Amino acid sequence: MDSRGYSILTLALAAVFSASSAISFYICRKKWVESDLKVKELQKSLNSALEKCAAERQGRIRAQQALRKAVVAQPKYDNLETTAYPMAPIGIIQSCFSTRNGTPRQPLLVPLARACLVFDSARVPPASLEGLEEYSHCWIIYVFHLNTDLEKLWKHPSQSKFKAKVRVPRLKGGRMGVFATRSPHRPCPIGLTVAKVEAVQGNMLLLSGVDLVDGTPVLDIKPYLPYCDSIEGATVPKWVMVDSMLSVASVSFSDDLSSSLVDCWKAAEKRSLYSSPNEIKTLVEQVLSWDIRSVSQRNKPHDTLTKFGNGDSTSDLGDFQDGEAYGNGTEVAASGEIIYHLTLEGMDFSYKIDCNGNVIVEKVQLSSGIASGNQKRCSYLMWKDRLN
Amino acid sequence: MDSRGYSILTLALAAVFSASSAISFYICRKKWVESDLKVKELQKSLNSALEKCAAERQGRIRAQQALRKAVVAQPKYDNLETTAYPMAPIGIIQSCFSTRNGTPRQPLLVPLARACLVFDSARVPPASLEGLEEYSHCWIIYVFHLNTDLEKLWKHPSQSKFKAKVRVPRLKGGRMGVFATRSPHRPCPIGLTVAKVEAVQGNMLLLSGVDLVDGTPVLDIKPYLPYCDSIEGATVPKWVMVDSMLSVASVSFSDDLSSSLVDCWKAAEKRSLYSSPNEIKTLVEQVLSWDIRSVSQRNKPHDTLTKFGNGDSTSDLGDFQDGEAYGNGTEVAASGEIIYHLTLEGMDFSYKIDCNGNVIVEKVQLSSGIASGNQKRCSYLMWKDRLN
Repeated sequence: MDSRGYSILTLALAAVFSASSAISFYICRKKWVESDLKVKELQKSLNSALEKCAAERQGRIRAQQALRKAVVAQPKYDNLETTAYPMAPIGIIQSCFSTRNGTPRQPLLVPLARACLVFDSARVPPASLEGLEEYSHCWIIYVFHLNTDLEKLWKHPSQSKFKAKVRVPRLKGGRMGVFATRSPHRPCPIGLTVAKVEAVQGNMLLLSGVDLVDGTPVLDIKPYLPYCDSIEGATVPKWVMVDSMLSVASVSFSDDLSSSLVDCWKAAEKRSLYSSPNEIKTLVEQVLSWDIRSVSQRNKPHDTLTKFGNGDSTSDLGDFQDGEAYGNGTEVAASGEIIYHLTLEGMDFSYKIDCNGNVIVEKVQLSSGIASGNQKRCSYLMWKDRLN
Repeated sequence: MDSRGYSILTLALAAVFSASSAISFYICRKKWVESDLKVKELQKSLNSALEKCAAERQGRIRAQQALRKAVVAQPKYDNLETTAYPMAPIGIIQSCFSTRNGTPRQPLLVPLARACLVFDSARVPPASLEGLEEYSHCWIIYVFHLNTDLEKLWKHPSQSKFKAKVRVPRLKGGRMGVFATRSPHRPCPIGLTVAKVEAVQGNMLLLSGVDLVDGTPVLDIKPYLPYCDSIEGATVPKWVMVDSMLSVASVSFSDDLSSSLVDCWKAAEKRSLYSSPNEIKTLVEQVLSWDIRSVSQRNKPHDTLTKFGNGDSTSDLGDFQDGEAYGNGTEVAASGEIIYHLTLEGMDFSYKIDCNGNVIVEKVQLSSGIASGNQKRCSYLMWKDRLN
């Protein structure tokens, strides 16, 4: 071959070699660029994952800290360190007293006051109630769930602030230590009351003579044992208002009331623990025969008007009874007379009381404020055969 | 230039071009490999981050669920959802009854049984106790802190398992619902008892006639109001052992005992609510005059021996009284006789009881099992001027 041939061959080989190098380079570069992009993508994902991780971790730490504060796994008993014991209610009261207003200050005062204690069936098997019916009375240990400052319990279980002293009526504005009263506003908002045992059925307990408001959560019930619980010769200080349950002169009903009541009854019947409008009237009579107005209202009615249904005069009265019967829920008629309200079994009764202590129950209507329908309510029909 | 020159030039150019292509390719490939390695590394990091994220998330969700179960910011009252209310004790009982063994089953049975309720002064200002002294008796709402399954309260506040029925002595092994008894083993381990109010001083309340064991955490105290709490005509079923507090025939002390007691007293005195060894002897007499042995022990003493101080026969007995007086803590002497133990004020008394019901208290020694010294204890000297 001549030199020209060699040149061409060389050129050709060089060209092929270069082309393949170039192609390889091109492919390689493409892959490198792809890889680089992937690197950037992954870095972005990684950063995002790490951020999320940090957020979840923060959330976990916060939840665990809050859990530790509220709930301690190994309570220490040897010193005064205040460990909070989580007490979960075993049941809820369905009571004829729909609001605090009108709920008696004392148990057994209103014999016809009925309540159905519905137990959490997941927690309280019906077998645990066997034998309870054979007692005449039982204690109810419950939570003052309507205390306005209740949420402090969860924020700072061992630091809930409360008024050390509360006003006592008889001392005309003077105060006594809260532990010398039965005021609901205590460090542990636990109430103690007694009621008559009527009947037990499945996971429900029918009670009468109650002084509990509808919706009260119950922590425990215990049978009443006279030889333990009834103390002969127990004494109380003079300033305890033994006579605080003043009775009124009379209770009467307006002519319109009976027919209004029959109307309301059509809607109220299926959720009522009572058999008839007449039985309701008797209940109203029993409740109102005790002057449920607060001391201030009794003495200076016009000075203590509050918006209907609002107001909690507990801390003013320092009432030392469990339950909160305060004559709030008032309005002024055009005539200047005060109209009081009382809500029972979801029915709002309005009444007046004259200067001689005669109560006239004037009107009744279905209460708008009461949550209705959500909850299955015990009714008279369930208990019909068990009640005397 | 001749053709040879062109060939050389071409070759040279081709060589340079190829070399540079090869070098570029080599560099590019290197970078690609690096990039690929980085991709693998990042993928690994990302996977690891995602795993960690998932774990944190799981931890967060678990903590939040537990928090929600135990602690709810806005408790719902309208339905049966079980919200746990964190109840932090307001004080701790320092009682003459050092162990459950010997603690009475009923309040007021042992008039000389003293306890000092020491309030958490950070939480309970002394002003809150003003007026309490003027009542003769008060209720004590406390926690059954010695229940062996108490930690379930924190793990699953609304799902703590408990025996629905407990054995009742009179029914000879038959069972009744736990709510028909005062057994400590209830969903909410809350106890209710009454005691005589002796005196109030600062953040301390001196009580007598107690049936509470040393170290009991107290959730609340309430004054005893006879017109609320004492129910005339309350009845109980026949199977309630009204006569469960059998009295023994006599209680006597061995000759050695008095001197042993004086010896123990030297150490025990500064932590004792009593004034002298004689007063302690009277206490022992009062406690042992009630047969504190369990029903099984009474009937078949040798069958129910347990190790000293251990054993909780509550669930066997279904004892329906608050407090746990179980005649555990026994041993057998060389003679075959059973020696019982009773620990009061940190002193361990051993006694025998013959077939006629005569109790002979034989020995006393300082109890080894009682934690001593850590806690500042109320003593008689603090109360000397206030006690009758």
